[in-house]
Amino acid sequence: MTTHARPPADPATAAAVKAADRAHVFHSWSAQELIDPLAVAGAEGSYFWDYDGNRYLDFTSGLVFTNIGYQHPRVVAAIQEQAAKLTTFAPAFAVEARSEAARLIAERTPGDLNKIFFTNGGAEAIENAVRMARLHTGRPKILSAYRSYHGATAAAINVTGDPRRWPSDSGTSGTVHFWAPFRYRSPFWSTSDAEEAERALRHLEDTIVFEGPSTVAAIVLETVPGTAGIMMPPPGYLPGVRELCDRYGIVLVLDEVMTGFGRTGKWFAAEHFGVVPDLLTFAKGVNSGYVPLGGVAISERIAATFATRPYPGGLTYSGHPLACAAAVATIRVMEDEGIVEQAARTGERIVGPGLRELAERHPSVGEVRGTGLFWALDLVRDRETREPLVPYNASGEANAPMAAFAAACKRGGLWPFVNMNRTHVVPPCTIGEAELKEGFAALDAALTVADGFMA
Amino acid sequence: MTTHARPPADPATAAAVKAADRAHVFHSWSAQELIDPLAVAGAEGSYFWDYDGNRYLDFTSGLVFTNIGYQHPRVVAAIQEQAAKLTTFAPAFAVEARSEAARLIAERTPGDLNKIFFTNGGAEAIENAVRMARLHTGRPKILSAYRSYHGATAAAINVTGDPRRWPSDSGTSGTVHFWAPFRYRSPFWSTSDAEEAERALRHLEDTIVFEGPSTVAAIVLETVPGTAGIMMPPPGYLPGVRELCDRYGIVLVLDEVMTGFGRTGKWFAAEHFGVVPDLLTFAKGVNSGYVPLGGVAISERIAATFATRPYPGGLTYSGHPLACAAAVATIRVMEDEGIVEQAARTGERIVGPGLRELAERHPSVGEVRGTGLFWALDLVRDRETREPLVPYNASGEANAPMAAFAAACKRGGLWPFVNMNRTHVVPPCTIGEAELKEGFAALDAALTVADGFMA
Repeated sequence: MTTHARPPADPATAAAVKAADRAHVFHSWSAQELIDPLAVAGAEGSYFWDYDGNRYLDFTSGLVFTNIGYQHPRVVAAIQEQAAKLTTFAPAFAVEARSEAARLIAERTPGDLNKIFFTNGGAEAIENAVRMARLHTGRPKILSAYRSYHGATAAAINVTGDPRRWPSDSGTSGTVHFWAPFRYRSPFWSTSDAEEAERALRHLEDTIVFEGPSTVAAIVLETVPGTAGIMMPPPGYLPGVRELCDRYGIVLVLDEVMTGFGRTGKWFAAEHFGVVPDLLTFAKGVNSGYVPLGGVAISERIAATFATRPYPGGLTYSGHPLACAAAVATIRVMEDEGIVEQAARTGERIVGPGLRELAERHPSVGEVRGTGLFWALDLVRDRETREPLVPYNASGEANAPMAAFAAACKRGGLWPFVNMNRTHVVPPCTIGEAELKEGFAALDAALTVADGFMA
Repeated sequence: MTTHARPPADPATAAAVKAADRAHVFHSWSAQELIDPLAVAGAEGSYFWDYDGNRYLDFTSGLVFTNIGYQHPRVVAAIQEQAAKLTTFAPAFAVEARSEAARLIAERTPGDLNKIFFTNGGAEAIENAVRMARLHTGRPKILSAYRSYHGATAAAINVTGDPRRWPSDSGTSGTVHFWAPFRYRSPFWSTSDAEEAERALRHLEDTIVFEGPSTVAAIVLETVPGTAGIMMPPPGYLPGVRELCDRYGIVLVLDEVMTGFGRTGKWFAAEHFGVVPDLLTFAKGVNSGYVPLGGVAISERIAATFATRPYPGGLTYSGHPLACAAAVATIRVMEDEGIVEQAARTGERIVGPGLRELAERHPSVGEVRGTGLFWALDLVRDRETREPLVPYNASGEANAPMAAFAAACKRGGLWPFVNMNRTHVVPPCTIGEAELKEGFAALDAALTVADGFMA
């Protein structure tokens, strides 16, 4: 498909792009004068390159969204065609790309999640799932897990001064955090998967009971926590959560923004556990991030709540035609090329064995965990105590070991995903064996650097 | 540019699009079984059409975002080119389209608003402006106006369980609503513009003083309130707000999501008042909604707060290359074709006089107000009492007069913007005189319907 030739250098463009970036772009999650963003010239498949002739293998999929890799020609063509036809249209209308995207997504979501509310991304998907759960149940509280990420929005509706504020302004706090299972760093002093699941469920039910079951609208969980560390829940946990939700009349929201659309080797990670949520949030992989898109898949029962009563939520670009056309093309490509099955196979045959082999040789690797193209290496100062290689939320000098690890990866031509004491291996689901081997070689060298920081 | 020929009918496609919409698309702000979304087949310039051979003149610009009209060929081509080159890339990098969009926007925003933080839309822009203001001042409260709309997000960060929650989870309520000036329905019993401005400023200062100036992080205002009714603030009001902000160390956030990029006949509405905010939010017109994009323009002083301290906010698609490329092309088109100046001229010479002429003949029109391509007709039951034609937030039977008005517009081939007792005239800024005349004829007939509902 591509030769991945060394791209030609173009220092003049690099300088201009960099200068305008430094003068005018305010970057996410950053101290603006302490960053030095790489100027990126292009990308294809699993690789991207800068203007200086350097090419990187992308083990991040952007921010875990390019499940089909960069610049898939069919999806690029679909975007171009939709742009020529009808690039934008307001949400109150029926539009072909929107209808078709909703149909294709609904056909793939588990159970009766047949209605799709579109947003621009994952945060807005969670916003709307929370609003639906509160209005459906008439209850105020939301339970969610420590070690989770669900987006960064919290305020716009509070500032608004029209009736659209009424259903959402109050009760936007009312979030209670509980502990979800995590075998390697158990919050429950468990000694087996079964014990971890059982204790986690007891802890959750206790929390529900003490918060007051009649006050809990929803439990929100990433099916497999993503940025927080890719912890596959032990067997029995999610079915147990489903049962607790049913027992107490609580809406189960599974956040599949990162896990959805093939990342774990299934269309949705919920399929690994045989669980159907009441609401499922998605974004990223739905169109590989080619155009901003997210959404909520809604069960028939919750949709019925808003059959004759207006749903009080929305946004200007809900179901944006260009974004939906990219989703339609992406889903068809994934289907035609068997990308979901490929992710499962690659995870089982290549990534899992490859990472475990690295762990054998590198004592800084405390645990290897994951499935599909969704893996984490948990780096430690000491395998016995499992003390993380850097403290929780470390920055500056305290984070030096992970910074050195990341720098070593980049020297080896690998762009790594690094969060706290972990590196995640989350390349495109389309990545090939040779590319993975190349990435593992770079990881190998970088883990030697990490080993040097052990206690 | 186009013949606007009657499009051919295609009932088979219409039925399929409609069926999938009804089965799978959950619509914004709607009771799902009480709506009947029109299936839209295409759009160009100021018009769109359905599959049944009906064409509509769009007086809504979608949701007030297609400032350059539908399917502008240069912007469509720019989207296609960027899709072929690099459709998506993560936010932590310098990317040409992102750098260039930031530079072009920063060059047009007033004062020293030189740093651009990109989001997917207006709600996330407000989210981040509020977060910046709270962190910059170290104060919790946000003051905003009744009769305003700033987006519909409020919860995702509260549900999150990682350190990115810490700066935003608390203090997400702490919103205080005050009354902004509105001459036609004065909250201050004023009898002149000067008195309205003076009393509104006194009311605002009293609110600041009683809330505690040292607790107020920001005042958030739409420069000209949009969905709430297009009320141009009286001369002196916004400069007075700026002065209050300076006196009390409060951040001034002007929301130009709807007013920005030519809508009022200036690049930004703040220019009408000679006021420079500390933060300015935008979306919609920045790329005419061709690809979801919004953002915050940040003053040097606030940007400096995050020079060496990380800004704790972000999103996966911040500065999305495809969206930014559409912004670059849109801004260049607006510049090359003089669209901002055209909006000013069209408002002054055609829309204002045309709407005032309608008001003379239709007693249901209580007031005509606006500028550029940003106008409202305030419909009343009685011109003396100014009682709105329908009550605040009316639905069902109580809203029948406005429903009848809207239906009459559509029968006349005009798609109207209707909110409560108002219709807004907010077509693309590129609309021509003949098109406007056609729209005014449809408004004329519909206002006769509205007249029939007067007391």
